[in-house]
Amino acid sequence: MSAEGLRVTVWNENIHERIAGSVPAELYPDGMHSVIADALRARLDSDAVIRVATMEEPEHGLSAESVDATDVLLWWGHADHDGVDDFVVDRVHRAVLGGMGLIVLHSAHHSKIFRRLMGTTCALRWRNDGERELVWSVAPDHSIARGIDEPLMIERHEMYGEPFDIPNPDELVFISSFAGGEVFRSGATWRRGHGRVFFFSPGDQEYPVYHHSGVQQVLANGVLWAAPTRRTRPGEALECPRAWYDS
Amino acid sequence: MSAEGLRVTVWNENIHERIAGSVPAELYPDGMHSVIADALRARLDSDAVIRVATMEEPEHGLSAESVDATDVLLWWGHADHDGVDDFVVDRVHRAVLGGMGLIVLHSAHHSKIFRRLMGTTCALRWRNDGERELVWSVAPDHSIARGIDEPLMIERHEMYGEPFDIPNPDELVFISSFAGGEVFRSGATWRRGHGRVFFFSPGDQEYPVYHHSGVQQVLANGVLWAAPTRRTRPGEALECPRAWYDS
Amino acid sequence: MSAEGLRVTVWNENIHERIAGSVPAELYPDGMHSVIADALRARLDSDAVIRVATMEEPEHGLSAESVDATDVLLWWGHADHDGVDDFVVDRVHRAVLGGMGLIVLHSAHHSKIFRRLMGTTCALRWRNDGERELVWSVAPDHSIARGIDEPLMIERHEMYGEPFDIPNPDELVFISSFAGGEVFRSGATWRRGHGRVFFFSPGDQEYPVYHHSGVQQVLANGVLWAAPTRRTRPGEALECPRAWYDS
Amino acid sequence: MSAEGLRVTVWNENIHERIAGSVPAELYPDGMHSVIADALRARLDSDAVIRVATMEEPEHGLSAESVDATDVLLWWGHADHDGVDDFVVDRVHRAVLGGMGLIVLHSAHHSKIFRRLMGTTCALRWRNDGERELVWSVAPDHSIARGIDEPLMIERHEMYGEPFDIPNPDELVFISSFAGGEVFRSGATWRRGHGRVFFFSPGDQEYPVYHHSGVQQVLANGVLWAAPTRRTRPGEALECPRAWYDS
Repeated sequence: MSAEGLRVTVWNENIHERIAGSVPAELYPDGMHSVIADALRARLDSDAVIRVATMEEPEHGLSAESVDATDVLLWWGHADHDGVDDFVVDRVHRAVLGGMGLIVLHSAHHSKIFRRLMGTTCALRWRNDGERELVWSVAPDHSIARGIDEPLMIERHEMYGEPFDIPNPDELVFISSFAGGEVFRSGATWRRGHGRVFFFSPGDQEYPVYHHSGVQQVLANGVLWAAPTRRTRPGEALECPRAWYDS
Repeated sequence: MSAEGLRVTVWNENIHERIAGSVPAELYPDGMHSVIADALRARLDSDAVIRVATMEEPEHGLSAESVDATDVLLWWGHADHDGVDDFVVDRVHRAVLGGMGLIVLHSAHHSKIFRRLMGTTCALRWRNDGERELVWSVAPDHSIARGIDEPLMIERHEMYGEPFDIPNPDELVFISSFAGGEVFRSGATWRRGHGRVFFFSPGDQEYPVYHHSGVQQVLANGVLWAAPTRRTRPGEALECPRAWYDS
Repeated sequence: MSAEGLRVTVWNENIHERIAGSVPAELYPDGMHSVIADALRARLDSDAVIRVATMEEPEHGLSAESVDATDVLLWWGHADHDGVDDFVVDRVHRAVLGGMGLIVLHSAHHSKIFRRLMGTTCALRWRNDGERELVWSVAPDHSIARGIDEPLMIERHEMYGEPFDIPNPDELVFISSFAGGEVFRSGATWRRGHGRVFFFSPGDQEYPVYHHSGVQQVLANGVLWAAPTRRTRPGEALECPRAWYDS
Repeated sequence: MSAEGLRVTVWNENIHERIAGSVPAELYPDGMHSVIADALRARLDSDAVIRVATMEEPEHGLSAESVDATDVLLWWGHADHDGVDDFVVDRVHRAVLGGMGLIVLHSAHHSKIFRRLMGTTCALRWRNDGERELVWSVAPDHSIARGIDEPLMIERHEMYGEPFDIPNPDELVFISSFAGGEVFRSGATWRRGHGRVFFFSPGDQEYPVYHHSGVQQVLANGVLWAAPTRRTRPGEALECPRAWYDS
């Protein structure tokens, strides 16, 4: 799918970045969502519409109208997964099953919405020592890997390691190694209902990962990959046909 | 795995069969769970322990002790999925992720536990005209298909048809056709956490499906397939190691 | 991928249609390849280039230059699989691994090239009684299924049935039922090297299957799906980088 | 499956070890096959029958009788893949499709039989610097991973890296990292016909890998996993039913 008219929402819990003097605040003075949104604007067609939404807004910035008007949603969360209201999670879940794409970032592996879609704990091993991560493609022809260095190198990052308690991916795109020796399935996709889900693990708030050109390109590629094939008018666009969803 | 010492619980909502004069009551005067349990006793090793549990019992017969003492759980529900208490669903969900096998039967495609594990609506097409279902194996070497006629014929049954809103199965074992022309992925498996899940669609309450020898053999095969590889003492056996589950 | 500049070759063994007075000759006086090629011309962008090639040509119409200039190859064979020269099969095999798309039609399940790519016998059950085939999508959001009736109905056709001795597909798109009750995985995809392979079973020479509008649309969708993502100049375009292929 | 009566053949090209004064000759004075065979004898039931076969024997030690009498075949080759006669490859290929298990070791990723079964080049990246390999399980409940350290550490080994040109595995069991930072899908399984195939990459001839207790356990686990479920009398046992294979 081309990005023509694509409506993207970058959601961020936006907690770490608001702690004055913290590393995340220095790296992302306007929040990670701003950097991600700017990167998508620069890399997608000019008529793609990139919006941001954060936890502190009413309904976390994810009103029914907002979700209806979103083709692909990116999700970053870490400090307060439990603080996300269940009715918003329900809404996002229904939207994904109805066709909205979802890109799950880094520590959002433990978000309510990702665990809801996966059905597992989504737990993993971790160690935050600021070590080198190398992201290798095992599906070099996948559109998400297009134009990405082999490997994509992140100088310093938190380690995420196997075992990662997820269902078998439909497509395994990236595997990372860490300087400490661990490996991790760092890029993977699943279909859920009419929607597409892409998990991409790089993106800890303590490191400038979303300023990385290669990471930005993966996100832009991911948005294009996750874009729904069926888009109709807002309010109807992303709902399942009733016979499908309610039977 | 052999059935040696295997602890199986057959759960049934047991509503249809208790309506005096109904077809299910005639077909299964002691409930479908009784027929299924007897079939498993006859087909598994003599030291397998087959228990039953039903919705009307305290905690639906699925106390923490009972679930801890279960290696494989079979689940039949239809009339009152919503009546299953969420804390019991939570408990069963945790147990599956910790290694307990789960066999989901027929209309339990819409049960809370199956939808929780799949992350999708698990909706499907259906029509109840009492038509012939043929169950074909597309994985004839899978242990669940062992000794099963090709095809297994069910003379009269409810039609379940595609599209079936499930995640891609890890293994597709059976595909059914119906006299009306529909097809359905009638036997499929998924791993979730440490547990194995098998969905098998035959088993509508209006037809004597669980009296069918071939269906009984599929269930016995399924129990052996779903049995956990790690079994320790009750209360510990099926929990995830804390580092795995809580990280 | 859009069809812009796409170079498609429709290959046909073209034996049945040349037998004067035969059913295939009446249904396809200029060969099945002609009907398929015309259908693709009508359904793809006007600047797509659709060529045909047949067995009786030198090198079966698949010279090195011709294969280098092909983005997607369709393959129909039945009566003389063994008559296809191995060096041509080698060439097509290398091209697929280098990125050329391949669409394998009906009885070409037993072609040298498909068996080479699959590694199995690709055997199946069959019965030619001219019975109704219904083609159901189990992946309704797959681009190959876009715009296709659910089900696509073929009034009279040869039965192909399970078990079908293929590797597990990467994506299962269509499952067919037949009036006699059999089922068949009639549309499936695999990645092999840099190339994409799509098998679609409808298309027996005794029935007017390739005149069917829905079948034609599946083929057009399949061509777009199988088109390589990397296309450079002829002679280089579809070769693996040497370091990849020769290491 | 238990190992009761299991008939295993360890095949080795046995070239490197016969070069007087070479590292492989010092590490494996009786050939790698001897060390592997002894390890299997020690780890499988006492009535399992472990045989060896090498390239220099008539028909490479793989006569029709020998293959018929083999339930699981292990294959190590490197220096002379082309020297393996095609008729022997044909025979082994037929046997696998008929149910014989096959375990493909290290540089046998480029063997004729593995490429035949996969349909791809099976090429990969490599660098032989004697660096540390860590083998991580991504399917810790798979029977092949049972009892294996997480990670299994090989102090010094040749690097094998992605991209690895194989079809998507049915099951991904192990992923390795190397001290240089590369990753590799080092343990993977596929079904082909009635047979099971397991590729396990550790085992370069320059390092004492097959003396490693954990590696030996993976091989023993792999043999049990790959053992056919249908075993009848020699000469018939592992052939496909004619209707299946020849149709």
